[in-house]
Amino acid sequence: MSKFTYTQIDEAYKRIHSQILRTPLVVSEYINSLTKANVYFKLENLQWTGSFKLRGALNKISQLGVSEKKYGVVAYSSGNHAQAVAYASKINQISAVVIMPKNAPLIKINSTKKYGAEVILYDPLNESREEIGQKISKDQQRVLIKPYDDLDIIAGQGTSGKEIAEELTNLNIFPDIYLCCCGGGGLIAGTSTYLKYQFPKINCYSVEPNEFNDTQVSLENKRIISVVKGSESICDALLAFQPGDITFAINQQTLLGGLSVSDNEVKNTIIQLAENLKIIAEPGGAVAASALLNKKIETKNKTIVVMVSGGNIDNNFYSKIVRDN
Amino acid sequence: MSKFTYTQIDEAYKRIHSQILRTPLVVSEYINSLTKANVYFKLENLQWTGSFKLRGALNKISQLGVSEKKYGVVAYSSGNHAQAVAYASKINQISAVVIMPKNAPLIKINSTKKYGAEVILYDPLNESREEIGQKISKDQQRVLIKPYDDLDIIAGQGTSGKEIAEELTNLNIFPDIYLCCCGGGGLIAGTSTYLKYQFPKINCYSVEPNEFNDTQVSLENKRIISVVKGSESICDALLAFQPGDITFAINQQTLLGGLSVSDNEVKNTIIQLAENLKIIAEPGGAVAASALLNKKIETKNKTIVVMVSGGNIDNNFYSKIVRDN
Repeated sequence: MSKFTYTQIDEAYKRIHSQILRTPLVVSEYINSLTKANVYFKLENLQWTGSFKLRGALNKISQLGVSEKKYGVVAYSSGNHAQAVAYASKINQISAVVIMPKNAPLIKINSTKKYGAEVILYDPLNESREEIGQKISKDQQRVLIKPYDDLDIIAGQGTSGKEIAEELTNLNIFPDIYLCCCGGGGLIAGTSTYLKYQFPKINCYSVEPNEFNDTQVSLENKRIISVVKGSESICDALLAFQPGDITFAINQQTLLGGLSVSDNEVKNTIIQLAENLKIIAEPGGAVAASALLNKKIETKNKTIVVMVSGGNIDNNFYSKIVRDN
Repeated sequence: MSKFTYTQIDEAYKRIHSQILRTPLVVSEYINSLTKANVYFKLENLQWTGSFKLRGALNKISQLGVSEKKYGVVAYSSGNHAQAVAYASKINQISAVVIMPKNAPLIKINSTKKYGAEVILYDPLNESREEIGQKISKDQQRVLIKPYDDLDIIAGQGTSGKEIAEELTNLNIFPDIYLCCCGGGGLIAGTSTYLKYQFPKINCYSVEPNEFNDTQVSLENKRIISVVKGSESICDALLAFQPGDITFAINQQTLLGGLSVSDNEVKNTIIQLAENLKIIAEPGGAVAASALLNKKIETKNKTIVVMVSGGNIDNNFYSKIVRDN
């Protein structure tokens, strides 16, 4: 693998910055007092399409050549990459086919269609999205836009880290800890690369659902390990069984370790974020905040950056979480 | 009344800026395409204590003299000013008594107590909060912190407008329209003063619940008019029967007119803001967005600033709105 550095993220930012929201970095005095820390929340749930995924999709799709654009793209995704590819394709005026699990949140399926993509639903227990994607790519000459294991995607997601670094630098603040969700590892690979460049002493941690903590286990074992299939989690965006080859190679360099949280911890965090930050986070988008609020690491007197990566949760499911609380 | 200008807001900002969140100004590509406009949402629901009210309370309380601080303060409020006064009192280490309607949202009553204020509940149909407040003020020598009809409060709320103006100026953007909720009129008086100073051509509109459109009617009649008591609205923060003397004198200078929305329109807007902006807005905080989304004014090709003033809604009520939708 060619070396991946912050410069590729700077390049990506030049390419996409006019087509994304520069998402806010906010502080809650209540959560600061609760954790005895200075916590900065990066609100990628406010990003257009409802998650950070737009950054990577735009960086990839805007670099396609004229002949590639002619046949369009294909992608597989649990939902946030799907919406991002659909939206990025729409504004680049190319055709998109997206393969999504049939049990994906309705809000994600409907938004993907709304942006004009053709949606193909598959059964995640009995079918392989990679195989379906590769077949469509071959048959229809569509470029496959991978969800994370691609340097252009990783560089795009990393632009969120660049924004964090710029804002903290302007405030003359040096963060001690960075907590970020991890599915395939694209967002954390990109953002941790930028944050480690700007703040060499920062300690970066991946946060995953307990049963899908493949990056945590892989980091501990210093090699890619798969978790056993068959588990479930409400964190639909983070159900990867193993890290990507490219993302893991980067994350081994930038991360100090991995953390994980339970579904119940995530549900409580979603409510805490609504009550105290007045934001809607989806389960996968709330795991980093959940690691913070459930004290998975020592926080006292630390300056901590927490990624809130997405907000695409079905209103009815959100409503149910509140009722069951 | 002494002349109120942007300079008092600049002074207030110097006083309070280190004790508040500089709230984000965000854009939704989806809402832009829906309205065919460029819309900037100012997210005061993310402000500490969950609403803009902290700005005014801090500006007022931080200017109290040593002898005034000794006896503490008293305030009456439907809930957001209550929390703001309680929090501002706490960080200024003074005692606070707050008079709240017994039917105020639980989240507001509980937060006010959490910040250490003594809460006195009253019956809004049969008791006068002003009378209770004045009695306590006299008996206990507490300074009465009015919710809106006070130049220091108005200047404090105006700092949100200063932040909007600075951010748009940096982007070289000149807004055409400003939509802001209006209860007693403090927030809109302060923010519209600053926005008119920075952008003299901007058209500012108050937005109220249909049955509590006293500012709209008063603007049309060029004098203070009361609406008939006895109506109800889910917008608990905006149930003023008539404009304040001071706020109306300012708003007559700065506002082009008033708009109003129904409770059902507000409920739909709360859901739209959750789905598209991923934020929690309370009913009163959503009326300006509701005027936009329900086309109360022509929006095509306009640049519009929309105030989202607060997010203190009971989770169960929020959940009910989603279920009933």
